[in-house]
Amino acid sequence: MREIEGGITAPEGFKAAGVHCGIKKNRPDLALIYSEVPAVAYGMFTTNKVKAAPVHLSIRKIRKGRAQAIVANSGNANACTGQRGMKDAQRMAGLAAQLLGIEEEKVLVASTGIIGKPLPMPKIEEGIKQATQALSVQGGRRAAEAILTTDRALKEIAVETDIPRRGKGKVRIAGMAKGSGMISPNLATMLCFITTDACITEDALKEATRSAVDKSFNQISVDGDMSTNDSVFILANGLAGNKRIKTWRKKKKIRVEDENFHYFCQALDHICISLAKMIVRDGEGATKLVEVEVNGAPFQKDARRIGRAVATSPLVKAAIAGSSPNWGRVIAALGAAHTKINPHKVDVYFDGFPVVKAGEGIGAEEEKLREVLSKDEVKISIHLNQGECKATFWGCDLTEKYVKINKRYI
Amino acid sequence: MREIEGGITAPEGFKAAGVHCGIKKNRPDLALIYSEVPAVAYGMFTTNKVKAAPVHLSIRKIRKGRAQAIVANSGNANACTGQRGMKDAQRMAGLAAQLLGIEEEKVLVASTGIIGKPLPMPKIEEGIKQATQALSVQGGRRAAEAILTTDRALKEIAVETDIPRRGKGKVRIAGMAKGSGMISPNLATMLCFITTDACITEDALKEATRSAVDKSFNQISVDGDMSTNDSVFILANGLAGNKRIKTWRKKKKIRVEDENFHYFCQALDHICISLAKMIVRDGEGATKLVEVEVNGAPFQKDARRIGRAVATSPLVKAAIAGSSPNWGRVIAALGAAHTKINPHKVDVYFDGFPVVKAGEGIGAEEEKLREVLSKDEVKISIHLNQGECKATFWGCDLTEKYVKINKRYI
Repeated sequence: MREIEGGITAPEGFKAAGVHCGIKKNRPDLALIYSEVPAVAYGMFTTNKVKAAPVHLSIRKIRKGRAQAIVANSGNANACTGQRGMKDAQRMAGLAAQLLGIEEEKVLVASTGIIGKPLPMPKIEEGIKQATQALSVQGGRRAAEAILTTDRALKEIAVETDIPRRGKGKVRIAGMAKGSGMISPNLATMLCFITTDACITEDALKEATRSAVDKSFNQISVDGDMSTNDSVFILANGLAGNKRIKTWRKKKKIRVEDENFHYFCQALDHICISLAKMIVRDGEGATKLVEVEVNGAPFQKDARRIGRAVATSPLVKAAIAGSSPNWGRVIAALGAAHTKINPHKVDVYFDGFPVVKAGEGIGAEEEKLREVLSKDEVKISIHLNQGECKATFWGCDLTEKYVKINKRYI
Repeated sequence: MREIEGGITAPEGFKAAGVHCGIKKNRPDLALIYSEVPAVAYGMFTTNKVKAAPVHLSIRKIRKGRAQAIVANSGNANACTGQRGMKDAQRMAGLAAQLLGIEEEKVLVASTGIIGKPLPMPKIEEGIKQATQALSVQGGRRAAEAILTTDRALKEIAVETDIPRRGKGKVRIAGMAKGSGMISPNLATMLCFITTDACITEDALKEATRSAVDKSFNQISVDGDMSTNDSVFILANGLAGNKRIKTWRKKKKIRVEDENFHYFCQALDHICISLAKMIVRDGEGATKLVEVEVNGAPFQKDARRIGRAVATSPLVKAAIAGSSPNWGRVIAALGAAHTKINPHKVDVYFDGFPVVKAGEGIGAEEEKLREVLSKDEVKISIHLNQGECKATFWGCDLTEKYVKINKRYI
């Protein structure tokens, strides 16, 4: 597997466009992604009870396991907008389908931005028309721009991987995302669109995506708040011509995998983890990426809970912002994580430097730790020493700027 | 029930002292509370897996249901201090018992302050000697001062209530607390000591305390971090001479209550809720008290979860700091609260002004809402309209100052 040039259109047969239709002041605000042929598709969505209209709509559409286009706008979340919101989301899909000459049910929809305001439909319709005309294999970057809100950095990545067994040898996977920068302080939305030219079954795509999302987007946090619009879409159009990647159940229980499935997963994990880390690094007000690695846990869920608890603790996050080697906060946060771990066995390292052994401080040199914590990537390793399970969680520091950004309205 | 003058020593037969023994630079740092006679006692403690030495010790002691004194220091949490920490906590109790001429097992211990440093025992021993000599009925305020860390305000309250049925008529309950101001940014500890001269059975005291704590200290949050040292102690010495308040089980299931139990609970609830609100109002960097009232929930736990989710959301808290009427954040936070509520039935009010009806914004006048949100007490009412259960949660706003305070080290 290697990273390659280009974004969402790097895989065979995908085109994209990003245009400015006027929801936002100057920047691109409408993205369109299109596959030349219908693709196997899967989606994952926010678990928030309050879901935006495009989320409700796309959940229904993607049940059929096929899609050919994604239309997305930034600047307005189309959330808490009632019946009108549903109609507007449907209209977005319907118009795109009509102009592209494809089935309406194969167009997925996403929105991100302010909650509670109706979409400016005339602008959006105009935008969809422009985007349809602008579709090209060079349009990936503009599309990635058009879903950003207050993100400071564009988030896109593409990889190529060998599918060594049988048939043609290479498939490409690409992704673009937007993170928790917000068009207004109303909402932190995570959108991620992934394309691949791999030929893969619906089940295998689903399993690979769930596993990748579980290790990436489900393991990051900027502030613990969960959006009404979070969506991950993946489209696999099969144009790489590889022998179909598949998984199946043996005796209805054990999952059997095609050997190539493993290579596909590896590449997809890389796409998702890379985008997830880009999102956190670009968190509102964030100056540092914080990686919390937990190992030696009795159960996977313990490792995950502890990683999340430490990486989301406001006290830990503020300490890291100040490069303060406050290991006491790490210990307090992990103890509060609703697990049954024994705190007297725990070792903690800051970027490889031991600070806690068997639950007690070892008097590590403060100046050294300060130096370690002032880097722009901080790694906290927690060795629970009571099992074999592990997990990694990514967060960011908490700065005055986060508060400042979020005090503002619209 | 009415509030009365005086703090922790307002009930009959209690004395207290607060002295400066040198753990902190200038301010009182060692508190002693003493009952002339052994008291029925109950305690509740942090559920953090990482517990400080005094917490481990007091949990053991209070199992017997009797106590006569509390010795507490601020400036050092005696947490993550291993065997030495346990010995130091025992020494605090032992010395106080010896000087007071009471049984060691009847002395409870609490500490608050920095994690991971051993207690300066010579200073503490000297402090316990001074405090024993200084014990008086006028010492309540000094004792309440001595448990503070970076709290800006003293937290004490006393009430008198009528116990109308049978026997003498009045009992007094008093409490003091410290909140999440911290001696250092290592720890947010909540300590609360309550005294009463009520004559009450162990079981009734336990039930009344659990119920009061559930409605008060378990319903507040400054930043969601849970301390290693949180402790609530209550001592009831019976000197009011009222007919013993009791509860008992009928057929081992239904709880039957003495009528007077109700009056006692009412007064104890008032003590605990008042202290809890004082803690939140004095939260680090806080400028506003935020009350989130949730009603119409199908289950009590739904109401509690939603109250907590909204009051602890960094986005909601930052919005309130900025007096921004961002109801979208309230909706997003309540949807994320792991309940099965239907968001399309929810109404939201800011201080009585409707902002959301049936899950949709009603276009409330922004200027009016800004005015409401700029008060120093902000009330968010959430009507779920899908049941009969309710809960109230208290939090505070999130300001740049919170981050600034917590970036610093020691």
